Amino acid sequence: MGIIVQKYGGTSVGSLEKIKFVANKVAKRYREGHDIAVVVSAMSGETDKLIRLAKDLSPSPDPREMDVLVSTGEQVTIALLSMALKDLGVPARSLLGFQIGIRTDDAFMKARIIDIDTSVLRETFAAKEVAVVAGFQGITDTRDITTLGRGGSDTSAVALAAVLGAELCEIYTDVDGVYTCDPNICDKARRLDRISYDEMLEMASLGAKVLQTRSVEFAKKYNVPILVKSTFTDEGGTLTTQEDSEMEKEIVSGITYDKNEAKITILGVQDKPGIAAMIFTPLSESNINVDMIIQNVSADGKHADLSFTVTKTDYEKAMSIVKQLSGELGARDVVGDPSIAKLSIVGVGMRSHAGVASKMFSSLSRVGINIQMISTSEIKVSCVIDEKFIELGVRVLHEAFELERSRTAL
Amino acid sequence: MGIIVQKYGGTSVGSLEKIKFVANKVAKRYREGHDIAVVVSAMSGETDKLIRLAKDLSPSPDPREMDVLVSTGEQVTIALLSMALKDLGVPARSLLGFQIGIRTDDAFMKARIIDIDTSVLRETFAAKEVAVVAGFQGITDTRDITTLGRGGSDTSAVALAAVLGAELCEIYTDVDGVYTCDPNICDKARRLDRISYDEMLEMASLGAKVLQTRSVEFAKKYNVPILVKSTFTDEGGTLTTQEDSEMEKEIVSGITYDKNEAKITILGVQDKPGIAAMIFTPLSESNINVDMIIQNVSADGKHADLSFTVTKTDYEKAMSIVKQLSGELGARDVVGDPSIAKLSIVGVGMRSHAGVASKMFSSLSRVGINIQMISTSEIKVSCVIDEKFIELGVRVLHEAFELERSRTAL
Repeated sequence: MGIIVQKYGGTSVGSLEKIKFVANKVAKRYREGHDIAVVVSAMSGETDKLIRLAKDLSPSPDPREMDVLVSTGEQVTIALLSMALKDLGVPARSLLGFQIGIRTDDAFMKARIIDIDTSVLRETFAAKEVAVVAGFQGITDTRDITTLGRGGSDTSAVALAAVLGAELCEIYTDVDGVYTCDPNICDKARRLDRISYDEMLEMASLGAKVLQTRSVEFAKKYNVPILVKSTFTDEGGTLTTQEDSEMEKEIVSGITYDKNEAKITILGVQDKPGIAAMIFTPLSESNINVDMIIQNVSADGKHADLSFTVTKTDYEKAMSIVKQLSGELGARDVVGDPSIAKLSIVGVGMRSHAGVASKMFSSLSRVGINIQMISTSEIKVSCVIDEKFIELGVRVLHEAFELERSRTAL
Repeated sequence: MGIIVQKYGGTSVGSLEKIKFVANKVAKRYREGHDIAVVVSAMSGETDKLIRLAKDLSPSPDPREMDVLVSTGEQVTIALLSMALKDLGVPARSLLGFQIGIRTDDAFMKARIIDIDTSVLRETFAAKEVAVVAGFQGITDTRDITTLGRGGSDTSAVALAAVLGAELCEIYTDVDGVYTCDPNICDKARRLDRISYDEMLEMASLGAKVLQTRSVEFAKKYNVPILVKSTFTDEGGTLTTQEDSEMEKEIVSGITYDKNEAKITILGVQDKPGIAAMIFTPLSESNINVDMIIQNVSADGKHADLSFTVTKTDYEKAMSIVKQLSGELGARDVVGDPSIAKLSIVGVGMRSHAGVASKMFSSLSRVGINIQMISTSEIKVSCVIDEKFIELGVRVLHEAFELERSRTAL
């Protein structure tokens, strides 16, 4: 039988009882005859606790030392889970990033995996041991500990599955799969049995919090099937896999939203080359990520209005940078709105079906929701709307695209 | 200027405030121009918390995984102390056992250091960085994490000082040095300015809890001077160093005691070769350390009474093993006494002075303290007495050998 990589998130290993429960799940899979690598996160709350400790100590904690600090969370979990497995008679071996050789670049706190040495893992499997791997962490060529950023354990798991040629990467979490929309907002939300990598990528980056975007990129690149399942029920699950003709029948697979957005508009900037760079270079230098950007040329053809969105957290900082620039830009005014949200529809079927965007716009307009900005890609349409209408918008679109039913045509 | 190794124990880094305080102490030394390696323990209570977690999870936690677990305590401290140093403008780099190359054997939970690679430390010094080293931990040739046992950070510090050829190893703790006896028992206890390695070794193994025995062995072997000082006062300190003629003038340097002893006596065993092995092999196989052993041949010359001491913790287990053996041994009876304690005098001056032991015995007898067992070495005399007399015994001997005054002749 083949290799299976399992990943358990922080809430799945959040107490000694839960660790024992997970050990039993792993043991069951092991006894079926699989070679198993289990990737675990820190016990829920632990990473935040460590970050708080650093922030209470230092106004801006050193990033290298931050990674030395927070990587202890996963180290604790792998030790405990390995103990629990051994108590069940399952041979197990905890493995840290440096012990395996999970090589990353040296971008502390948001490192990227360069490659993974499989020799230690293969020795572990050969010895019939379960490899219990610390997620979220890696090691640089100079033996510095790195971490992969929030949700990085997903990426660890998928990357391991990729290099090992695993038959499946199982991501165990506190939800039982990926839904057509947030079930907390819309009671007609339906769990998707399958979803393509591209759709999952869009959904992850548009606000669905099931998987880290980077992990889906990895899975797509190496064609690793990812099964998202609940730790505590056997039912359900969503398989993220290669796109096939069956998936295209579904025009829209899911509705996502992101409330963590704010809008800034610069009115009447001169419409000449280099203006965009003048605005966005200082923002990027201040580590502010800009999401959507829209520019309209005004009637005189010489001036433009430029709008863009940033996260709500970065809003104040971005506003003050842009206001300082407005003189240089010859801008008439700078106006901001932190009360917006982004509503998106995602589906590979859009490629082959016309009228999807216009159906979205008309559905929103019918209930009086004004669209402030629009951004599209091959498989998604995003609209910026007033934050207070976001739940209504999700429900309206869910119904318009008949997502409560499977395999709907336009 | 030379290299200085400093070690701060758990109580010295037990809170963020204390870590900042320690960072300031290190910074001061650094600015004097020294190359500095700082070895730290886990924040006080953390190691115990981790051990409790493992014991709550598993009836007998796997030793390899135990070391993966408990070594996180020091990892947290080195990250935090490095952050605090950088905030003071002092370049610093945290270093784990595997990053330096602190090679140990694979005796998990009680590993011994084999050697230490100095190249990373020398690079750190060359870059004018303080090396902030995780105490207590090492790495095997198969890249498994090990720990050195209770108090192991002392050994880490002394071993580093040895391989680096440091001019001094400073051990910062919550007491300001080594005393002639426990100041909690005897208000005339006097702090020793200097003590020889051999005396410190005897005192450490006889119950004084200032330094781990193994660290003193290292210091003696590599001739590393150890200064034991209080973290929170600048005064005081005891230097453990090579013996010199000045030290010999002091006949007795200190009085120690150990209440964690229990006595077992086997009455009327046959006095023939192999009997001792028959008794002590099974005890050793059950991981019971035997301290003192005394055998008296009885009047008929064919039978002997054999007494030995074990820790109070091992007493019940040892009694049951010995009772099972008593048939085989043809012993008349086995009697035990868990209410004893060991009282010792230590001093290199004993080598050149007669009558030290007899003065000890007569002083104890004068106040009615009965001596149950005696054990001597070149520089110490130990007596087993009734536990309830131990404090009295310490005070009587402290006065008899005039330890409240320095440089006393017999």
